[in-house]
Amino acid sequence: MSHEVVVIEGDGIGKEVVPAAVEVLEALPVDFEFVAADAGDAVKERTGEALPAETYDLAADADATLFGAAGETAADVILPLREAVDSFVNVRPATAYPGVDALRPETDVVFLRENTEGVYAGHEDRLSEDLSTLTRVVTSSASRELAEYACEFVEDGRGPAGDHDEGFTVAHKANVMRETDGRFREEVLAVAAERGVDADEELMDAFATKLPLDPTQYGVIVCPNLAGDVLSDLAAGLVGGLGLLPSANVGHDNALFEPVHGTAPDIAGEGVANPTAAILSAAMLVEYLGHVEEGQRVRDAVEGVLSDGPRTGDLGGSATTDEVTAAVVDRL
Amino acid sequence: MSHEVVVIEGDGIGKEVVPAAVEVLEALPVDFEFVAADAGDAVKERTGEALPAETYDLAADADATLFGAAGETAADVILPLREAVDSFVNVRPATAYPGVDALRPETDVVFLRENTEGVYAGHEDRLSEDLSTLTRVVTSSASRELAEYACEFVEDGRGPAGDHDEGFTVAHKANVMRETDGRFREEVLAVAAERGVDADEELMDAFATKLPLDPTQYGVIVCPNLAGDVLSDLAAGLVGGLGLLPSANVGHDNALFEPVHGTAPDIAGEGVANPTAAILSAAMLVEYLGHVEEGQRVRDAVEGVLSDGPRTGDLGGSATTDEVTAAVVDRL
Ligand SMILES: CC(C)[C@H](C(=O)O)[C@@H](O)C(=O)O
Ligand SMILES: CC(C)[C@H](C(=O)O)[C@@H](O)C(=O)O
Repeated sequence: MSHEVVVIEGDGIGKEVVPAAVEVLEALPVDFEFVAADAGDAVKERTGEALPAETYDLAADADATLFGAAGETAADVILPLREAVDSFVNVRPATAYPGVDALRPETDVVFLRENTEGVYAGHEDRLSEDLSTLTRVVTSSASRELAEYACEFVEDGRGPAGDHDEGFTVAHKANVMRETDGRFREEVLAVAAERGVDADEELMDAFATKLPLDPTQYGVIVCPNLAGDVLSDLAAGLVGGLGLLPSANVGHDNALFEPVHGTAPDIAGEGVANPTAAILSAAMLVEYLGHVEEGQRVRDAVEGVLSDGPRTGDLGGSATTDEVTAAVVDRL
Repeated sequence: MSHEVVVIEGDGIGKEVVPAAVEVLEALPVDFEFVAADAGDAVKERTGEALPAETYDLAADADATLFGAAGETAADVILPLREAVDSFVNVRPATAYPGVDALRPETDVVFLRENTEGVYAGHEDRLSEDLSTLTRVVTSSASRELAEYACEFVEDGRGPAGDHDEGFTVAHKANVMRETDGRFREEVLAVAAERGVDADEELMDAFATKLPLDPTQYGVIVCPNLAGDVLSDLAAGLVGGLGLLPSANVGHDNALFEPVHGTAPDIAGEGVANPTAAILSAAMLVEYLGHVEEGQRVRDAVEGVLSDGPRTGDLGGSATTDEVTAAVVDRL
């Protein structure tokens, strides 16, 4: 069976790291049919639309999508694409790799971020010359669905190993957003209790202090949408930046994979971008499509290259994107 | 002229660190009239109300208030107290002190957090069995008032010295909250431009990655309410925790000062809490009341004790609260 994978390079280094990730996928004994699609600043310049309807439809109908990055139009591209693949959870691992300079080399956490609601579902109004409002949305159904996913994630042993307890931590701000985050917190903890999964909780501000002080306390962290955005980016700062971090936007029978980094306009076009985050995103894609062993092979190859292979400039080396990619393919 | 200062110890170590801070204030050549008032868990237990109306009124009528911490009732106490003193900005310095173990010893930043709006002004509704909403509020007037304060702060040279540019950074999420954070961003940048103060901007998620990677890029950071809450707590994690950080809730002709830490129930009642954050909050209070030199004397004394004086357990020492306080008073 061939998997139809939509490939959206986007802007900037997306045009370099996505082809690198596709090269790695092509080296695997898995049958893919790649379908190229367009999105981002350049498309908007040309057509007036950052996300053409055909790209949305292709992503919606595919088995999975691999996306690079978009520039100024990032929000106009990624938010509808998350909707196109019907994604309810954004999976964001932040792992420090041996040999990579990290502020907290012991960091190994996975954020499970609610991917449809909160301020992202926000209806905004300009009520007067002086006043604007945004309606933040939290439902029990989305909170419970995320929690079910988190419980399965933990039960399947997909969380990081480490000092922390099994189970997960819910990070929220229910002491202020009592009704909305209160609902989120309550439903997530209720699902965990029903399924016998350990869950503790942390206020998101306290979490932001404690994660840098000791990341080994945490494993899987379940958050509302914006909290997950900010706290996972904080974790990125502890493992050495966004350059290595993959992510998955998982839906009911579709998903989209993307590096956490942006378009890196300062180095775009030079062939020196680090393809690691895109390749690790491809590993998540392979795993999502049922090829768990191949996903692991890609991850192992990447880890090998990170520890003693060629490195791009962001990691203190001088290798090109192609050299790093070839080294990963070599180790598969 | 005597300054009327309302003193609210609150719960837990609030009962230890606030008296320590008062002792330091009493050692200064400044005339204070201290008025004790109650708030917190214990009061709620006794009276059913975490913040008695008389405490609210006392704080509202005083020249300034010094607050410790409250336990479970923290939000019920501090949010109305911020309103009582008519506070529009929460000033939160995060400085790493020589001799104190910090993940990023070069951190020296000040957050100026909007203190009335955002989700904190949020009206919440339970619209159905499944759905709750919160209305987030942003006004041009509050955004501009914060920005005016930030400009004065920078103009008066109150921001940290360092590598970063003069001026301030606005952190926001206007790529998603286009109307509300868009308004905030636009007004803050407009005020800076009108006053000729340099201002740049950062998305709050990108800021959360970049601050741990290199805190020296930043000096004064201006944020919406919840962003300021989370990002300043992140900075606390970089300077070694909440134990040392003071804060000021500044209003039009009133203000409230509080350590950023909580009640620390694990060590409360043992006389070993670190009084530094409360004493530094008292230094901000003295400065706010116009005694800039005395405020600086307190800060210098605290820095001296931190670098070669007695230390409490959180800093690896075994001194008591009283010993540290006496050492600070000695150096005044
Ligand atoms: C580009 C932006 C809309 C997006 C988000 O806020 O989700 C990005 O920060 C991310 O985390 O993927
Ligand atoms: C206790 C809580 C309501 C408060 C806040 O969110 O502002 C606290 O976290 C703070 O930062 O002072």
